[in-house]
Amino acid sequence: MDEFDLIERYFRPLARDFPGAFSLSDDAALITPRAGETHVVTTDMLLEGVHFFGNESADLIAKKALRTNLSDLAAKGAKPVCYFLSIGLPDRVDEIWMKRFCQGLQEDQSDFHVSLAGGDTTRSRHGLIISISAVGTVPQNGMLRRSGAAEGECLCVSGTLGDAALGLAILKGEFSDIPENLKSYAISRYHLPQPRCELGMRLRNTATSSMDISDGIFQDAGHLLNASDVGAVIELEKIPSSPAMQWVKWKNPMRWLELISSGDDYELLFTVASRVPEDATIIGTITQNKKLEVHDAEGKAVMPLVSGYRHGRPGRDVGP
Amino acid sequence: MDEFDLIERYFRPLARDFPGAFSLSDDAALITPRAGETHVVTTDMLLEGVHFFGNESADLIAKKALRTNLSDLAAKGAKPVCYFLSIGLPDRVDEIWMKRFCQGLQEDQSDFHVSLAGGDTTRSRHGLIISISAVGTVPQNGMLRRSGAAEGECLCVSGTLGDAALGLAILKGEFSDIPENLKSYAISRYHLPQPRCELGMRLRNTATSSMDISDGIFQDAGHLLNASDVGAVIELEKIPSSPAMQWVKWKNPMRWLELISSGDDYELLFTVASRVPEDATIIGTITQNKKLEVHDAEGKAVMPLVSGYRHGRPGRDVGP
Repeated sequence: MDEFDLIERYFRPLARDFPGAFSLSDDAALITPRAGETHVVTTDMLLEGVHFFGNESADLIAKKALRTNLSDLAAKGAKPVCYFLSIGLPDRVDEIWMKRFCQGLQEDQSDFHVSLAGGDTTRSRHGLIISISAVGTVPQNGMLRRSGAAEGECLCVSGTLGDAALGLAILKGEFSDIPENLKSYAISRYHLPQPRCELGMRLRNTATSSMDISDGIFQDAGHLLNASDVGAVIELEKIPSSPAMQWVKWKNPMRWLELISSGDDYELLFTVASRVPEDATIIGTITQNKKLEVHDAEGKAVMPLVSGYRHGRPGRDVGP
Repeated sequence: MDEFDLIERYFRPLARDFPGAFSLSDDAALITPRAGETHVVTTDMLLEGVHFFGNESADLIAKKALRTNLSDLAAKGAKPVCYFLSIGLPDRVDEIWMKRFCQGLQEDQSDFHVSLAGGDTTRSRHGLIISISAVGTVPQNGMLRRSGAAEGECLCVSGTLGDAALGLAILKGEFSDIPENLKSYAISRYHLPQPRCELGMRLRNTATSSMDISDGIFQDAGHLLNASDVGAVIELEKIPSSPAMQWVKWKNPMRWLELISSGDDYELLFTVASRVPEDATIIGTITQNKKLEVHDAEGKAVMPLVSGYRHGRPGRDVGP
């Protein structure tokens, strides 16, 4: 398969509903925001052996690559519009793989109302390479920023934290005694982040700051607090845990704290002065003192593992 | 160096002049077209061993990656605005390399009036990976398309063709007897495409179709003719050759034809009904019969090497 066959057979159908993609037959795409709207753009690159193993089902790899970008748009309150896919394909990739990869993209395009608008394909001698840039829209001056949190506001998160890190730990051979249903839940959370697009758009008029959690709650909270020039107290006991993470906490509280700190959650971290959404959890309060304090159930300060993944970056190794 | 150090020390200065980049400290960038304008977006991925050797000077690698994208914008008549850089860095990359890489970007940012707006950095186990998405603007309905060429119009190209392919051939050991000045010219054309941004914008109101030549004149002419549903006669003798390519033509006319057909030119191919720009060359005429004919100096039809790079795609191997 050469580049033109690939585009015609696999990628063109994904651009069918986006007129500005010109059926992927021109040099560039045309993207026009509606009156009063502006574009939000983000980009993420995923490499085999760093961000995924490579032996995952192709549709899961496709969805994870797209969803990490959609999560950034969600965090900014942006409505997803389209994305650009650059892909480096190793020789082992066959038509069955390509079909499944594009099926994954098609499913997510339907679920998140987004379309392929352009891209680039090339052969890779060294594993699969996926780079996606996603474009969304917000009302003028409507983009949620990391800055904007103020003293007294609630610090909130969506969903539950640590599940993806637990899933990765399980895939690497840890927690062999975890119940089967919790195991498969955690692994699916690792493979398939759930970008909170709908919540993000709902937060446009209520959140004072927002970002998505990709590097771990404590490190990312640090980013948000720095950008807002404030501090916070996070109450460890309030951090929402799934049944799988509750099992870990019961077995090994230290490991729970590590997993909570590890990242790949793709949940939203945001602040509100009032009106906390029903599908979010308050985990702390914004303070004026520019420090991030973490308190345990007794109100005692604990040392969070803020730098958990800092040294692992850039990129998290999934390989041996 | 971790991701945050890299961003702070090397990439942040490149985003200084673009307010919507938020100093690369947020999850996404904000890009707002001016009233009456719309966004043109393109993306290209360059891999070590496929699109470049890897031992080139870092500033040249940076510029080539950016310029291949700017060339797409030029072909659409778009004014460059900003770009997003995702980069996979192998372990061998050190601070000297990073500094030179970003210096190259900075120089091209100044030359082409474009700014870094966002990106992603990760570690790569297998060579350097660069993926760039570039954003430009055109007036509403002002984007030049591949379609639009009509019978009787002039088919034109900017610059000279085949130089980059010659440069690559020289780097691979061919043409050892080429004069030194022609050699260095050809190699520099391989390393440093010249995106015709200014010409592209000038063509907005005169060209009926336009694209950039990356896969070779005959193959790309085929794309333009297909999109426009027309044919063309190209006169081989009119294809503009630099002194270096004239030397090749004198030595080996067949090799000249192969190099002309090889691609990586990043010149503009376009059609006009009248008013041919002074810095372009008419190489043929659009016909109604939907075929691409190539005529030699005597007007005889010759077989162009249209499929020269087709089988090499996706990606052109530069390695051994």
